[in-house]
Amino acid sequence: MKIDNVKQINQDIKMQAKAKLDSLSKPLGSLGILEEIVFKICSISNSIKPDISKKVVAIFCADNGVVEEGVSQVGSEITKIVANNFTKNITAINNFTKYYNQDIFIYDVGINTRVENQKIINKKVMFGTNNIAKGPAMTKEEALKAINIGIDSIKSFKDKGYTIVATGEMGIGNTTTSSAITAVLSNNSVELVTGKGAGLSNQALDNKIKVIKNAIFINNPDKDDPIDVLSKLGGLDIAAMCGCFIGGAVYGIPIVIDGFISSVAALLAFKICPECREFMIPSHGSYEPGSKFIYEELGLKPALFLDMRLGEGTGASIMMGIIDLAFNMYYNMGTFDDAKIKQYEELK
Amino acid sequence: MKIDNVKQINQDIKMQAKAKLDSLSKPLGSLGILEEIVFKICSISNSIKPDISKKVVAIFCADNGVVEEGVSQVGSEITKIVANNFTKNITAINNFTKYYNQDIFIYDVGINTRVENQKIINKKVMFGTNNIAKGPAMTKEEALKAINIGIDSIKSFKDKGYTIVATGEMGIGNTTTSSAITAVLSNNSVELVTGKGAGLSNQALDNKIKVIKNAIFINNPDKDDPIDVLSKLGGLDIAAMCGCFIGGAVYGIPIVIDGFISSVAALLAFKICPECREFMIPSHGSYEPGSKFIYEELGLKPALFLDMRLGEGTGASIMMGIIDLAFNMYYNMGTFDDAKIKQYEELK
Repeated sequence: MKIDNVKQINQDIKMQAKAKLDSLSKPLGSLGILEEIVFKICSISNSIKPDISKKVVAIFCADNGVVEEGVSQVGSEITKIVANNFTKNITAINNFTKYYNQDIFIYDVGINTRVENQKIINKKVMFGTNNIAKGPAMTKEEALKAINIGIDSIKSFKDKGYTIVATGEMGIGNTTTSSAITAVLSNNSVELVTGKGAGLSNQALDNKIKVIKNAIFINNPDKDDPIDVLSKLGGLDIAAMCGCFIGGAVYGIPIVIDGFISSVAALLAFKICPECREFMIPSHGSYEPGSKFIYEELGLKPALFLDMRLGEGTGASIMMGIIDLAFNMYYNMGTFDDAKIKQYEELK
Repeated sequence: MKIDNVKQINQDIKMQAKAKLDSLSKPLGSLGILEEIVFKICSISNSIKPDISKKVVAIFCADNGVVEEGVSQVGSEITKIVANNFTKNITAINNFTKYYNQDIFIYDVGINTRVENQKIINKKVMFGTNNIAKGPAMTKEEALKAINIGIDSIKSFKDKGYTIVATGEMGIGNTTTSSAITAVLSNNSVELVTGKGAGLSNQALDNKIKVIKNAIFINNPDKDDPIDVLSKLGGLDIAAMCGCFIGGAVYGIPIVIDGFISSVAALLAFKICPECREFMIPSHGSYEPGSKFIYEELGLKPALFLDMRLGEGTGASIMMGIIDLAFNMYYNMGTFDDAKIKQYEELK
């Protein structure tokens, strides 16, 4: 897969935004990541006064064939139930987005049964992936189709006026696919990068590790070919979110990483198209042990450590709240002119 | 110093709040620290429906005699200027508290000149501490007086109807006093726990380390006597915030820790009165290297890592925003009854 229409980051805008931040009445750079967020989003948006008021969480729902190996506490039927619950406003992400005044769009990219819900966007690639313990999850064509759904979603959000997009997912079994990809891409043992997901027993964790090892052995993915790794071990949710991160670079939209599964998608996007990274904003480090290895590979670091292990875009939603604060600071905080004290010298 | 009128944490309320959280439509415990915050504040407040709408940031301003050793980039005159700026609504904390709808109270506990500002509460213990490089910062009586100011501030906030208090400070030179206390209380080398504060050069950092080593050598504080350590090496801002944490336990109010300096005050309070810890809510890990050693000693962990190094209560203010989200989730999120899916089994 070749991505050759990536937007250029505007370094000049970045410096202008930094100069404005340095005029505010505080020691230079003392608001750390809040400041970095501001000049990153300004440079992506190609404006020193970007309008960040319209924010959206895109949730990609898909089933994973590997669930038949007993890797999760609940069955695949829960994916569709929770996907429907997103449209009934009773889940955590509904609560968070309402609180922060963000919108939600729900995509079916691979739920394993028919979904009769007008509020769920039907982009089903297939009825759940195949069981990775027995063979590849999907063909390369199916993986590319799901990636393109993610890329296109960013175009549609841009067309609707959204200026920041957060990634979210729902899919029983997707910490299994994510840990499998993490082990391969980070060259770590499956034991090190595999956790209890939404709440496995120790015994079930042992089984999950065995299943992942087997899946990697049987599929023998090529670590240097991200599409190969994705199609053999991945989920359709991961593929679609990977497309979102690529879409961020293509359409010039900052994309917020959520938890472990979303970060795996971000790393795949980075492997496909390294420029994507400039358009990513990390949010929280997941409770899942694989999370830190993904961030090491990605060369980014999360800002929130809330021990959350839910997905749905919940961590990204909180981060968009912090982004809002950061821009409120940038637009409205007093300056040294107001403060009548001389500017602190830059940290040498 | 003996604190014998500490409020008891209501464990029964804690379990009731946990049961309500477990009825929400999400895997058990999957919102991590957001859930812990809820049952902690419920148990402190002795209510499963605490009103957390009135929040306040208390900022304690004081000067440090050690500034004459050249340990900071700017002079002591900046303490008073910034304290006045807090009342002109042009600083970062003004911006944050307005954004989050929190109130601010500014205390002068030891600015080294007269402060003619009706909006600053005059609780001056002395005109700045003495230079710790030459002898003790203050007498034990002065330290106790500053601690009692902090304790009394919590009573006055409770009387005004505030149910959560965040600690903040302003005082040029206070990363020097904080690193000195950290080295002693955490038994670590001064080099390991000392950083560049708001922005020192490498050479100035070397001088800061030398000054702190000298201060510890000359004063020879008794590590097992927190009042001795505080009075010999501390600042009046640290002493007053230490009192806030004690006051939290005495008056049953959750107190939010801010950055490095505030966390040093929290550790001192914990050493004076271990029960205080139950009433503390950590916010962000500071960019200052001493921060993580303080949290190790305290047995708590920060949730936000924003590379901030400003103080003023800015990290605590952001955390109070997250607390607000956590309670919005607790009060308004859908339940399993709404969701019609059976509850996930508890993590074994």
